[in-house]
Amino acid sequence: MREFEPGPQRELAPQAPLHLPDGVRSPSYGRYLEEFETGAVFVPPRGMTLTAGLCQDFATTFMECNPLYLNETYARACGFTSSPASPLLVLATVLSLGVQNDSEKAIAHLGYYDVHFLRPVYPGDTLRALTRVVHRQERGDEPGIVSVRTIGLDQRDQLVLQYDRKILVPRRGTGPLPAAAPRPAVPFPDTDRPTLLLPDAQSAPHHWTGNDTYFEDFGPGQVILHGNGRTVTDEHFGWTYRVGNTHPLHFDRMYSAARSGAMSGEPIVYGGLVFAWLAGLASRDTSENALYDLGYTEGYHTQPTIAGDTLYAVSRVLETAPGPAGMDCGIVSLQLVGLKNCNGATALDRHGTDLFVKENAKRKLGKEKIAEKIFEIERRLLVRRHPA
Amino acid sequence: MREFEPGPQRELAPQAPLHLPDGVRSPSYGRYLEEFETGAVFVPPRGMTLTAGLCQDFATTFMECNPLYLNETYARACGFTSSPASPLLVLATVLSLGVQNDSEKAIAHLGYYDVHFLRPVYPGDTLRALTRVVHRQERGDEPGIVSVRTIGLDQRDQLVLQYDRKILVPRRGTGPLPAAAPRPAVPFPDTDRPTLLLPDAQSAPHHWTGNDTYFEDFGPGQVILHGNGRTVTDEHFGWTYRVGNTHPLHFDRMYSAARSGAMSGEPIVYGGLVFAWLAGLASRDTSENALYDLGYTEGYHTQPTIAGDTLYAVSRVLETAPGPAGMDCGIVSLQLVGLKNCNGATALDRHGTDLFVKENAKRKLGKEKIAEKIFEIERRLLVRRHPA
Amino acid sequence: MREFEPGPQRELAPQAPLHLPDGVRSPSYGRYLEEFETGAVFVPPRGMTLTAGLCQDFATTFMECNPLYLNETYARACGFTSSPASPLLVLATVLSLGVQNDSEKAIAHLGYYDVHFLRPVYPGDTLRALTRVVHRQERGDEPGIVSVRTIGLDQRDQLVLQYDRKILVPRRGTGPLPAAAPRPAVPFPDTDRPTLLLPDAQSAPHHWTGNDTYFEDFGPGQVILHGNGRTVTDEHFGWTYRVGNTHPLHFDRMYSAARSGAMSGEPIVYGGLVFAWLAGLASRDTSENALYDLGYTEGYHTQPTIAGDTLYAVSRVLETAPGPAGMDCGIVSLQLVGLKNCNGATALDRHGTDLFVKENAKRKLGKEKIAEKIFEIERRLLVRRHPA
Repeated sequence: MREFEPGPQRELAPQAPLHLPDGVRSPSYGRYLEEFETGAVFVPPRGMTLTAGLCQDFATTFMECNPLYLNETYARACGFTSSPASPLLVLATVLSLGVQNDSEKAIAHLGYYDVHFLRPVYPGDTLRALTRVVHRQERGDEPGIVSVRTIGLDQRDQLVLQYDRKILVPRRGTGPLPAAAPRPAVPFPDTDRPTLLLPDAQSAPHHWTGNDTYFEDFGPGQVILHGNGRTVTDEHFGWTYRVGNTHPLHFDRMYSAARSGAMSGEPIVYGGLVFAWLAGLASRDTSENALYDLGYTEGYHTQPTIAGDTLYAVSRVLETAPGPAGMDCGIVSLQLVGLKNCNGATALDRHGTDLFVKENAKRKLGKEKIAEKIFEIERRLLVRRHPA
Repeated sequence: MREFEPGPQRELAPQAPLHLPDGVRSPSYGRYLEEFETGAVFVPPRGMTLTAGLCQDFATTFMECNPLYLNETYARACGFTSSPASPLLVLATVLSLGVQNDSEKAIAHLGYYDVHFLRPVYPGDTLRALTRVVHRQERGDEPGIVSVRTIGLDQRDQLVLQYDRKILVPRRGTGPLPAAAPRPAVPFPDTDRPTLLLPDAQSAPHHWTGNDTYFEDFGPGQVILHGNGRTVTDEHFGWTYRVGNTHPLHFDRMYSAARSGAMSGEPIVYGGLVFAWLAGLASRDTSENALYDLGYTEGYHTQPTIAGDTLYAVSRVLETAPGPAGMDCGIVSLQLVGLKNCNGATALDRHGTDLFVKENAKRKLGKEKIAEKIFEIERRLLVRRHPA
Repeated sequence: MREFEPGPQRELAPQAPLHLPDGVRSPSYGRYLEEFETGAVFVPPRGMTLTAGLCQDFATTFMECNPLYLNETYARACGFTSSPASPLLVLATVLSLGVQNDSEKAIAHLGYYDVHFLRPVYPGDTLRALTRVVHRQERGDEPGIVSVRTIGLDQRDQLVLQYDRKILVPRRGTGPLPAAAPRPAVPFPDTDRPTLLLPDAQSAPHHWTGNDTYFEDFGPGQVILHGNGRTVTDEHFGWTYRVGNTHPLHFDRMYSAARSGAMSGEPIVYGGLVFAWLAGLASRDTSENALYDLGYTEGYHTQPTIAGDTLYAVSRVLETAPGPAGMDCGIVSLQLVGLKNCNGATALDRHGTDLFVKENAKRKLGKEKIAEKIFEIERRLLVRRHPA
């Protein structure tokens, strides 16, 4: 540190220059389709340190019931260094850090694919994001579909998260897209065969978790109706940027009111928060005994959520499989379906098996979309076995 | 930690089995009256580590004015290891941790009794709860009244909190209650003669607290009208599970709307939060110089509170007594009365001495219940003496 | 610590004395004009430790984009010990700590002047405030204008903040003010020539910040329209006391509804929070590469803000100047203008240069006040230069 005496601060405004209209700047963020050159790597600014307070506030606000994210003692007994950040916080934050660059001009987030958590993130770790353009689908002068891969790195440049997503991006101009300008090469340490760092959970106790959520309790074809709902309040305005997301759609009511179409009206809840609430509502029936979220894929936000909506979740067991050799665990693949203003029992009664058919497959199948359904994803969890 | 390569996550949902209706599960929590066998000990799951961020967020959201819970320097000077968790946070959390097991099916929480804080809880401590059924009062096919004792333990299995409460619990069936099934014995380290661990406050400074809240400022018969109110917002939806409470009555508007009677409509504020706000509103006039909350008893939530209600508090000095030998402190017993949408001066004007008569004693006395009154409890505080 | 066995807590209320109306107390806080003797030093109670959780929660809720306050790694690389508390949090907290004594009876906060941050504040530091009455302007029986200087000290009694403010204070009585009673002398370690402790930022990396907010990007006369707005929710009720402010105008709807005039109706957002949101909204276009807030002056809240209002910010570059010798930085002076329910482009279109004329100078200039304008201040920032 060094000392500096700045002297008195005189009032300047009455005499200072003012260049109107020439000096007016309106900084704008995000990118048009023209600016997504395939292969380009983007380095969004900022980064975010996850404090212990944020990790706990996120886990509890979003109703996490897995004690890993609530209970330091349990997390250590499971082999973690301390209570790790919730995977949903890691995902919501890394995605958010890329929003200013990747999607602050986007029309819609179309889907998540191949989400992998490569190592636990702990309080005190600082996350940053890098994004690479994988593919750009032109649709004439219509908005195009861009596939990007985003990676999350910690302060030691270790890969902690990798996922792909598709976004719908408007054109700036019309006509054929311009040739890509050359960009400086930026290292992008993603991986084609993700290797995850898992806890050694041999000494983990069983009195901190319920007795009906062990590996053996799940069988393919089961449907679990999660009873409790959560009414979302305008708390989501603040949470959007608490996880680093700068898109005004989520916290600027004038911006939202001025839009047209399905996204107009009240600010839309950021999808990363919707997913977190749904996973939380499902957690005491599904992931309470999970040791690690192995990954997610085929994630779609199918309807917007706003403050005042009450969220409910339904899970379906897709598959069970043995876990890694030497661990008392198995792998449970689950489909998570999110609903608004309709609980799981009612939705199942109304829609039956259609509840589990992907919304974007419905047209091809000649089926109606489900208005109450807001989200669907497939999750693969590493779940503890019943104590011997 | 160990490495694991899970391989690619294929989309499973379109081909996976789906067993309707046979494979549908609707997990349900809490207990019917039949399941409260006298003497049984329940071990609810989960636990909660109180981070420094949570402790401060709770103390300030609920308007605590005692610097012990706000000011690290003052807390250490008073003999604490660091700024302790507010007793109201400890109580709200331990009670909440038991809700999933004890009262998620309960109709009402009827009262708190004999609340003792046996030692300070610090940021980083992990709390868990154990509950023992003390008494079950059958009332035919009507809901019964269950008395339970709950204890809070820290990560070293030290007793930090003990209290009794009564809850109104519905019957599952009709007719005589079935004989109790034998249950495995679980150690339940409660105590009949609580011994509290108090700080040595000899060197505590006086410039961090006001000058009108020392032991000598309180005399039996005084009534203190706390001027400031606090309008509760729907922030309480999130706070319910931030302290671990899983009851949907507090955050699921569809659940609340579908209920009938006094608890229907908007989500009801969890009582532990109501108590915390009222104690906070009273704190700068009563407990600002308190070193320890020795205990509470006869605590009743007499009307529900919802978002939009403005809370006010009134205190009455019940008794003063000498403190422990060798400490410059005395014991002040206070009655805390909570009001909604009516400040203390107005309530005293309207109801006079009746404001301090327990609501559940009113019928016997031929008195009307007070609609604005939401809470009443007796508190026993250890309060510093005036500096010499 | 010492052990104490308090014995059982008997129910006292039914038999305890109750002295009505003689025993009724209505503690009141703040001061009338009569009680602001020029030269007096006030020592408000309480103090506040800024936890890491609070620092991050504040920075992100109020939309700070400077990674100094979000990213531990960046802050350390800039020469800070860790990620410091946001200057807006330090200001909001120290001002709030004085409210109970200085302004809980005040009618209005009239302005901030000569705000200096003398050294960084870090998580774990405990702040307290001292206030000295600089000047009291009598206006007969009308409310008077009091100028006070407030200083913020940390737990080592180091000066971290100093500022002056003017407040409008009601009379208790009528007629000439009484002569000042002598007060005990209290040390008040303010300074006439503030020396700031700045970070050595030589090794600070550039990939955490955007490329358009370096010193060279700013020129006098520029106007920057910050695109994103933030709709304020009733989250501000809780935030008021999270930063230590006890004034019921900000969280007690019954108090607010009972007032008359411009401050009546819904609770008004505490000005320290309004300023923080506006600075946050401006941050990614102005202060993202700032290393230090050198100071603020001429700060005025010109219209109240309530929950539901959407805030927007406009900045104007007033002056640029060289930074301290040996640092790759320059000094940028900015005028920050806050708006409600009207974005910067619209306001500039409607009001042109008048947008930047101080509201309290408008009458003298024969100009209309601007209803959408809620705040104006001049800020002096130390901003990094472009990488070579």
